[in-house]
Amino acid sequence: MSTETAQDDLRGYRGISREVLARDGIRVWSEVRAKTKQGQFEGLVLPRSETADELHIVLKLDSGYNIGLAADQIESLEEVGRREAQYKIPEKKFPYSAGKPRVKLFGTGGTIASRLDYRTGAVIPAFSPGELYGSVPELADICNLETEKLYGIFSENMGPEQWIGVAQACAAEIEKGIDGIVIGHGTDTMHHTAAALSFMLQNPPVPIVMVGSQRSSDRPSSDATLNLIHATYTAARSDIAEIVVCMFGPTSDDYGLLHRGTRVRKMHSSYRSTFRTIGDRPLATVEREKITILNPGYHQRCPRGESNLALNAAFDDRVSLVYYYPGMKPDVIESLVDNGYRGIVFAGTGLGHVNRAVYPAIEKAREAGVASYMTVQTIWGYTQMYVYETGREIMGLGVEPIANMLPEVAYVKLGWALGQTDDLGEIKKIMQTPINGDITEREPPDGYLVYQGGLPEIEEFMRRVHR
Amino acid sequence: MSTETAQDDLRGYRGISREVLARDGIRVWSEVRAKTKQGQFEGLVLPRSETADELHIVLKLDSGYNIGLAADQIESLEEVGRREAQYKIPEKKFPYSAGKPRVKLFGTGGTIASRLDYRTGAVIPAFSPGELYGSVPELADICNLETEKLYGIFSENMGPEQWIGVAQACAAEIEKGIDGIVIGHGTDTMHHTAAALSFMLQNPPVPIVMVGSQRSSDRPSSDATLNLIHATYTAARSDIAEIVVCMFGPTSDDYGLLHRGTRVRKMHSSYRSTFRTIGDRPLATVEREKITILNPGYHQRCPRGESNLALNAAFDDRVSLVYYYPGMKPDVIESLVDNGYRGIVFAGTGLGHVNRAVYPAIEKAREAGVASYMTVQTIWGYTQMYVYETGREIMGLGVEPIANMLPEVAYVKLGWALGQTDDLGEIKKIMQTPINGDITEREPPDGYLVYQGGLPEIEEFMRRVHR
Repeated sequence: MSTETAQDDLRGYRGISREVLARDGIRVWSEVRAKTKQGQFEGLVLPRSETADELHIVLKLDSGYNIGLAADQIESLEEVGRREAQYKIPEKKFPYSAGKPRVKLFGTGGTIASRLDYRTGAVIPAFSPGELYGSVPELADICNLETEKLYGIFSENMGPEQWIGVAQACAAEIEKGIDGIVIGHGTDTMHHTAAALSFMLQNPPVPIVMVGSQRSSDRPSSDATLNLIHATYTAARSDIAEIVVCMFGPTSDDYGLLHRGTRVRKMHSSYRSTFRTIGDRPLATVEREKITILNPGYHQRCPRGESNLALNAAFDDRVSLVYYYPGMKPDVIESLVDNGYRGIVFAGTGLGHVNRAVYPAIEKAREAGVASYMTVQTIWGYTQMYVYETGREIMGLGVEPIANMLPEVAYVKLGWALGQTDDLGEIKKIMQTPINGDITEREPPDGYLVYQGGLPEIEEFMRRVHR
Repeated sequence: MSTETAQDDLRGYRGISREVLARDGIRVWSEVRAKTKQGQFEGLVLPRSETADELHIVLKLDSGYNIGLAADQIESLEEVGRREAQYKIPEKKFPYSAGKPRVKLFGTGGTIASRLDYRTGAVIPAFSPGELYGSVPELADICNLETEKLYGIFSENMGPEQWIGVAQACAAEIEKGIDGIVIGHGTDTMHHTAAALSFMLQNPPVPIVMVGSQRSSDRPSSDATLNLIHATYTAARSDIAEIVVCMFGPTSDDYGLLHRGTRVRKMHSSYRSTFRTIGDRPLATVEREKITILNPGYHQRCPRGESNLALNAAFDDRVSLVYYYPGMKPDVIESLVDNGYRGIVFAGTGLGHVNRAVYPAIEKAREAGVASYMTVQTIWGYTQMYVYETGREIMGLGVEPIANMLPEVAYVKLGWALGQTDDLGEIKKIMQTPINGDITEREPPDGYLVYQGGLPEIEEFMRRVHR
């Protein structure tokens, strides 16, 4: 950490990367032209995060993306400009307004948190209501905000331990009478965490809204501010008392979408319009001061205020998700059994199939008492294991079909069920009992699928339906 | 097989299922009312396939789906009607027309084959041009058809061995001067086989068209006939000399879509409109006598007649596809290394991420000389591993990003590359060199994504673009 003071012109760089910068007289926040063995790059030298390796120098390109240049491939660096570094967000006292709802914002990390940091793409160490207000003053029109950092990690590192921690933190806030909760989260696994909270925190009396951003706030196209406003508004004002994901709707900035925590999936690696409700309508659209319910059937089941909160923060991590591929060999499954796994969710082909070569391993899993469930890797649609001989054979080996539960959701639910009981019959009952939309009876008529699968088409569809 | 004569009223049934049928005086092709411990069902008793278990009696319900009733759960069966069984398709001599193109139809199995069988959902043992002509006389307007059964299996059991067999059979036909090839295939893994053939059979001089059906021909909504006509027309008449998948386009019967073998994925478990080109436009639409190119850039690269056929039917099956989930533990990857796997394709979250807990296992894989590649489980979008620290760390462990190659396609390609060489540098070169669209430089403008993701929305889009 000796190199990581705020005053350090080479903030965060160590070893060879620090040497190369020093050699060419380049500082953090220099705009440089870099000649490398792979070609020439221009961009802004970013500070490095605490955990960074010492081999790369990171440039922010004009496109907004960061690139890591291997220091040993750099022939020369030339300073062509300079940007003033501002390590501190302007902080203002978040105004208290009597009568406005109280909202708690939990931070876990991810790109949304970099809204509050500074151009680095790194995770911020903390964020206060005052910093938030300095950045997004609209929040004070919506609510009285309190903030608390639970974690500071990218969401690919979120897992069962953090799911339990977040669930417990939410329950504690609800106990203290909060009016709504926002959870800032990286987008990679936001849908996994949303599913976990949907099972662990049933029947909350207030909205619990997960939010993230696909592009950090220093980029012109950032979705961070709008998503945060939408999520805070939903938490403070909506009647949707359940776990929802609030992210960008269309490719324009018109509105956000609220997705049920059990039916949502990230569908594009870089687009802002990436979260989509699968196999049903989203719950609602959200604009700056307006929520439009798209799925009243769901909504009515979870009204604000009716609390019967059941906190059940259990998880057994001896569960795996096996995504079938042609030519799969039984050793993939046998290893899980040998390593003591207690649950397997298959993502099979078609209506829920795997090849015959793995049948003996599935049989072995059954003999070892492993709970096995089948989902479909087509993502859309239902398992239907009675249609073909293959499905009937696999059911005969003890694999239970699980309707239209998404593979990721089934994985989370099975770990949650295994955390509660050893009884396979009890686990089956938990798995097959719909919770918060994880299984739906049938898909909506074709028209409603229009905006399910793809990405920008939602824009046009919404123009028709929503306006 | 003693119970399996065509005259047998209990065709295919053995053991307890045969006893229950005999007890209540029920024959195959009886319409029955079945009282079971799980409730009452009405349907048509179907004959059983050769490989069926003896525990179930299979009914075809009015919905068109089959259901397997456990014989020991059946309280009574009552015959309420009878349908005449026709074991033989009306067979007519396929007329030879001088001047029409010669097309070869290879059968591998799947629901499309049951077009040619009879209401059982079972795989047919053989099909002749005469049987095909009896069923789909339009085929004779298109071409002179020859048929050959290569396999008779559901596509979940297709794998590397069959991919190689099909590739070799196609090459042999091309050598003999065929004008086009159609491959009937189950839909579960049609996209995997299409990818394998795209790598194994490069630069064919004629179209190689994969076709299947989502619903067997005894169902009113069957797509079998139309798909077969479209595929045969494409093989006989189109200039698209590459491996394509020909399946239903919209929810109406208006036209089929032709998808590149490397960019197509099954996206719904039961819809007919299930195959979708991901991250690009489909190649073309196909109607009964008309092909409309949607993606001229692709098309021009593979014109009919320019043969430089490279048959390269290699595959090393010591390759696996690891679909990341939060909480993944290193043992999943360690087991692959211990079991001698030589290649791993990861389907990571977001831009191509896994959690830190598995880093040591990835390191171990590298030390063992395992070739590791990263794809994205968002399905749409590119791996971009320079954007976040996580991506750079994972690349530092030897995992190579592979742009927008679909996880399934990357799995097939890595097995194919490993089948050719042990040299990791050579493998990397093979993986990163685009072949037949498996990597595309960038996604088309937003408008073209409209019909990429979802399902029925394609209908509306096509109405705009295509008409």
